[in-house]
Amino acid sequence: MLNVRNRLQAWQGRIESVLEDVLPPATTHPAVLHQALRYSVLDGGKRMRPLLVYATGEALGIAPEHLDIPAAAVELIHVYSLVHDDLPAMDDDDLRRGKPTCHKAFDEPTAILVGDALQALAFQVLAAHPRMTASPAQRLRMIELLGQAAGSRGMVGGQALDLAAVGETLTEVELENMHIHKTGALIRASVLLAAYSVEALDAQRLQQLDHFAKCIGLAFQVQDDILDVESDTQTLGKTRGADEAAGKPTYPSIIGLSASKTKLQDLYDEALDALVSFGESAHLLREIAEFTVKRIR
Amino acid sequence: MLNVRNRLQAWQGRIESVLEDVLPPATTHPAVLHQALRYSVLDGGKRMRPLLVYATGEALGIAPEHLDIPAAAVELIHVYSLVHDDLPAMDDDDLRRGKPTCHKAFDEPTAILVGDALQALAFQVLAAHPRMTASPAQRLRMIELLGQAAGSRGMVGGQALDLAAVGETLTEVELENMHIHKTGALIRASVLLAAYSVEALDAQRLQQLDHFAKCIGLAFQVQDDILDVESDTQTLGKTRGADEAAGKPTYPSIIGLSASKTKLQDLYDEALDALVSFGESAHLLREIAEFTVKRIR
Repeated sequence: MLNVRNRLQAWQGRIESVLEDVLPPATTHPAVLHQALRYSVLDGGKRMRPLLVYATGEALGIAPEHLDIPAAAVELIHVYSLVHDDLPAMDDDDLRRGKPTCHKAFDEPTAILVGDALQALAFQVLAAHPRMTASPAQRLRMIELLGQAAGSRGMVGGQALDLAAVGETLTEVELENMHIHKTGALIRASVLLAAYSVEALDAQRLQQLDHFAKCIGLAFQVQDDILDVESDTQTLGKTRGADEAAGKPTYPSIIGLSASKTKLQDLYDEALDALVSFGESAHLLREIAEFTVKRIR
Repeated sequence: MLNVRNRLQAWQGRIESVLEDVLPPATTHPAVLHQALRYSVLDGGKRMRPLLVYATGEALGIAPEHLDIPAAAVELIHVYSLVHDDLPAMDDDDLRRGKPTCHKAFDEPTAILVGDALQALAFQVLAAHPRMTASPAQRLRMIELLGQAAGSRGMVGGQALDLAAVGETLTEVELENMHIHKTGALIRASVLLAAYSVEALDAQRLQQLDHFAKCIGLAFQVQDDILDVESDTQTLGKTRGADEAAGKPTYPSIIGLSASKTKLQDLYDEALDALVSFGESAHLLREIAEFTVKRIR
């Protein structure tokens, strides 16, 4: 049997091939747009959200083949948000996942359209991809969840809060609220997409998984902020110190680096606590939590 | 009984109130984003796509209350595309529907996020809005249709072709191909969303409605190009001559103004022919077709 780290890598390979499959071929008309779609999605990223979908599935006894499309859908939403977030009018980033950002490799209009097309594709595949095995009622519940998580009261709302925060002094509560929307909503959705594949999941287990997701979503962001201070551009694959330079509030800037590290550890402990009743089946969820707080990029 | 023109106006009032209802209140957190969402969607536009949904419903015996959410969903997608299309990196327009464009009234990042949030909302309401009456299977079919029509092989693909065409000399076939994607896909989707509300519509009627939609979608664009040459900024509610100034190929620039007018008439005749078997029930679809070719803005 493969060890946990190898199993996560196997899932990364799996989602890569699923994404390859759900994206239209690069020769599809108009070709430049479809090349840009594939450039932005394929061959990059930690795939944390798809890994969460698969790992939650394992904790609930659902095989990966039933989760391929939900995993792909949440990653398509995530990638679209990165492509738009990197635009000159937003964070104006040149590097993403160690490669030129979409608007640098192609151009700005193409990057806007790539984001738009990826979002449409995410909902389309949940509704009707041949690999989708969930019942119609489950699919609708997933589409509703993803729409909420991605929309103005979820991820996009968080982006708006993020932009409004530039140059402002936020309290820790305001910073947390921003992250709960900006990254937390989609990380929670990843876990819930898998949970919604179960016909009748009891409310307590759902609540435990949801709490786990909230904790690691926030932990991910705290670690991101710490890395923005402590790492270097080459390791990160994106510009180090970019948040600080842009006048964005971060955990280290608000509560200090040491308190940020304590917060990270607390969130990690709380995430693991939420999984206690799942025993061995949550092995890979725990591995993802550990990876979240110990990653170097 | 109201005459046809009054009935179209009643539907315009109806969709306004549905859109008002599906959009989060302006006080929703974050407030600026939600104000910008409502600013962009409400109180503007001809609402051609919702009118097509309702009028197709009438031709098929489906009451408007069953079509409110599909009509709202297609309009949300349309408005998002306008907001992104108006961005400085795209068409860089200052006026839309007689008001400052979203990025002028708010700012560029907000306009990007408004478009993103509207798209998510469109799919979310189709999946789960309380006013949605279609069966789960019908909803999924509608979401798939709207995803295809909005995505890289539909509207967004057409936008990419449009951008690539600036300064280029296109053939009439290439121009038509661009419009079939850019505006045609969503106009077809409007008609098909209504048709998909019928449990078992026969293939011939579906094909007739689809052909009608293709003809008026293209007619709409031909008339748009004619108006860009012949109208004035105040009447249009957007900058006259903008296409020409931007070096965009138009029907008048490729086949001449006179041939463009002939083409418009031919498409109108073909659209009406496609409705013959529907008799009186297609009265309002005919009115929309007439309005499409005779409108002055």
